Amino acid sequence: MYLQELKNSHKLIKPFIHNTPVFTSNLLNQISDAQVFFKCENFQRMGAFKIRGATNAILKLSEKQKSKGVVTHSSGNFAQAVSLAAYNLGVKAYIVMPSNAPKVKKEAVKEYGGIVIECPSTLKDRETTATQIEQEKGAVFLHPSNNLDVILGQGTAAIELLEDHSDLEYIFTPVGGGGLIAGTALAANLYGNNCKIIGGEPYEVNDAYRSLLSGKIETNKTTQTIADGLKTQLGDINFPIIQKYVTKIICVEEQEIITAMRLIWERMKIIIEPSSAVAFAALLKEKEQFKDKKIGIIISGGNVDLKNLPF
Amino acid sequence: MYLQELKNSHKLIKPFIHNTPVFTSNLLNQISDAQVFFKCENFQRMGAFKIRGATNAILKLSEKQKSKGVVTHSSGNFAQAVSLAAYNLGVKAYIVMPSNAPKVKKEAVKEYGGIVIECPSTLKDRETTATQIEQEKGAVFLHPSNNLDVILGQGTAAIELLEDHSDLEYIFTPVGGGGLIAGTALAANLYGNNCKIIGGEPYEVNDAYRSLLSGKIETNKTTQTIADGLKTQLGDINFPIIQKYVTKIICVEEQEIITAMRLIWERMKIIIEPSSAVAFAALLKEKEQFKDKKIGIIISGGNVDLKNLPF
Repeated sequence: MYLQELKNSHKLIKPFIHNTPVFTSNLLNQISDAQVFFKCENFQRMGAFKIRGATNAILKLSEKQKSKGVVTHSSGNFAQAVSLAAYNLGVKAYIVMPSNAPKVKKEAVKEYGGIVIECPSTLKDRETTATQIEQEKGAVFLHPSNNLDVILGQGTAAIELLEDHSDLEYIFTPVGGGGLIAGTALAANLYGNNCKIIGGEPYEVNDAYRSLLSGKIETNKTTQTIADGLKTQLGDINFPIIQKYVTKIICVEEQEIITAMRLIWERMKIIIEPSSAVAFAALLKEKEQFKDKKIGIIISGGNVDLKNLPF
Repeated sequence: MYLQELKNSHKLIKPFIHNTPVFTSNLLNQISDAQVFFKCENFQRMGAFKIRGATNAILKLSEKQKSKGVVTHSSGNFAQAVSLAAYNLGVKAYIVMPSNAPKVKKEAVKEYGGIVIECPSTLKDRETTATQIEQEKGAVFLHPSNNLDVILGQGTAAIELLEDHSDLEYIFTPVGGGGLIAGTALAANLYGNNCKIIGGEPYEVNDAYRSLLSGKIETNKTTQTIADGLKTQLGDINFPIIQKYVTKIICVEEQEIITAMRLIWERMKIIIEPSSAVAFAALLKEKEQFKDKKIGIIISGGNVDLKNLPF
């Protein structure tokens, strides 16, 4: 299922995204005892894979829908993604952001032409505010992760990775709202050669890990993680895909995220955000299981506030 | 002159270096009002272009010379470069380093198999200590910048850049000891299509700028710059090349270096060291002159201590 939709999505969004480079590092291979291929979505337009899903979702709207604009709520990257994707396609974007989101992220949304609407930081406040905009403006709500077109768009990063490296045995992604891992899992199932999908998730917000165990969507009571892109929960569209196609989720401690992030900064000379380091942290945590394997890792994004680094 | 030597050097060192990628950024093009092609030597092996010159210089030694090892003094990148180049070629490397060099740089030298010998931080102390090792061990001294084989090796980064973008009108490099800019100037003269060379230099250590004005090699009385790779002075081998082939040197303030560095970190998501930002800072400083031009910039390296960042 979804093969044709995935192919179409990739074809549709291609003119609006970069086919990001794949980096390798002898030193990181040594440290992880594996052969690792990093798909560098930190070099993607606006700095994260989320432009893929946002672009795909807006491209699928009718002309009438596009004329009224789109609205979303996001703690960061998806906000920028929708702003830029909408700008590229001549569509208005209303972005509901928690007032405590990093300043650099709010500024970036405005630079990309998005209209920022601030609200308190709870998920409920964000949802209520977005619904209000939907009703007032007639804008179409785009969920950051629980929207099939978003999921299909996110999966295109793994398509490109598998086009370059068809023999990957595993692909690791971080798990937040579930859009990236669900899209990656669909892509690996359709384009890979028995390629398994592993999620990395912070212990502090391991709702997805617990959801896979319990068989229903779990929530996080607290969200005290440095990986601020991974605080959201799964949804009814991506969860069944994750249940069906994801092999397992590995949970990592905050310090393990920081260590993995620092290794990538120092050894690969690239800037990634904490959320982006979680997949590599997961590999390091259970590296005995993946010894000498060919592993793809989606570096999900590079939006960081340089004035507030953990090292 | 030097065409054959440059070609040979490139051919010789190719198996030991990366042909580093060339990055572009729409946002940085907008900010600089030019079309800029960044040759990313921060992704070079050991994190800087200096592996090119070090490898070339060691490859040119006789077997007898190689058996006794090499010695150099360096505040940083060249130390790592000689260590790794020597290790790759089975040669012993004695590295004289100022005791106040960043810890991360000393550790990197040891990781690459170099033998660290610490000394006080003045140029004179470093030279005396290196001469001592030369005499005691019979090791060949490799100057970081005033050695023709080193200069030719450094020039290979510009060869690759011009192979990919033959229509560059300018190439900017930082100016420290003069090895990179001299090699780049030779390469641009031989491989470019009327491609001019511009240097960027911190005001605080603008010995090269003053040397071009006075017609003789000037020194720095103080070296209070964040661009710690650019404190050294020109030499009698690279200065004549620079006089002949470099169009001009643009001096930049410390804050301009930090701003340029931060722009590259934030916008391109790559880690560069302060010395490496000086060339882009120079372009920004006089951007009116270079409006809409096609410009290559050598990002010279990415070795930074993440615990000690200027922002």
